[in-house]
Amino acid sequence: MNRAVVPDATGDQVRAELARLRNSIDNMDAALVHLLAERFKITQQVGVLKADHGLPPADPAREAQQIARLRSLAEEARLDPEFAEKFLNFVVAEVVRHHQAVLSERPPAG
Amino acid sequence: MNRAVVPDATGDQVRAELARLRNSIDNMDAALVHLLAERFKITQQVGVLKADHGLPPADPAREAQQIARLRSLAEEARLDPEFAEKFLNFVVAEVVRHHQAVLSERPPAG
Repeated sequence: MNRAVVPDATGDQVRAELARLRNSIDNMDAALVHLLAERFKITQQVGVLKADHGLPPADPAREAQQIARLRSLAEEARLDPEFAEKFLNFVVAEVVRHHQAVLSERPPAG
Repeated sequence: MNRAVVPDATGDQVRAELARLRNSIDNMDAALVHLLAERFKITQQVGVLKADHGLPPADPAREAQQIARLRSLAEEARLDPEFAEKFLNFVVAEVVRHHQAVLSERPPAG
């Protein structure tokens, strides 16, 4: 295969198909960013609620439930469950960073 | 603050509020997983298209556009643009893993 000898008509078709697929990727990325923004608004509320009532920031039982549920949803959606778990860990690491920022802005608990 | 002296009524309210917020997080996580599953279906098509036509798997100009666009969308949505960029890199790393798997299943190009 030699990309220099692809005829122009085929090249145009390939470019059009690539543009179509990339447009869908861009639409999904916009949806993902907006969903993530909303998700962090909610975890921010969880962080404030926990800090207000002296609840521990981490909840290993809840996290285990979330991982099991997301892996199962991923399998149904034909997404690699390993990736779904890595994705949750990636998002939760950011949540923890936010919660630590909330705690550091408060006076130490008495 | 001492979590042992929180009256029961308050504890019930806090638990109910926490359950409400967690339910919204779970709904968003389901939406995120399904969107990601669809996104990977499309990048899989992009990978096949590129491999079929001898196009290089990486496209730095396209990636720079995606990063700039996602950072801008994140700012509008009040999401940390740094996080949006990290998120895109995280997803793209998985896409590259998929594309490498597609290439490794094919006979070497002549």
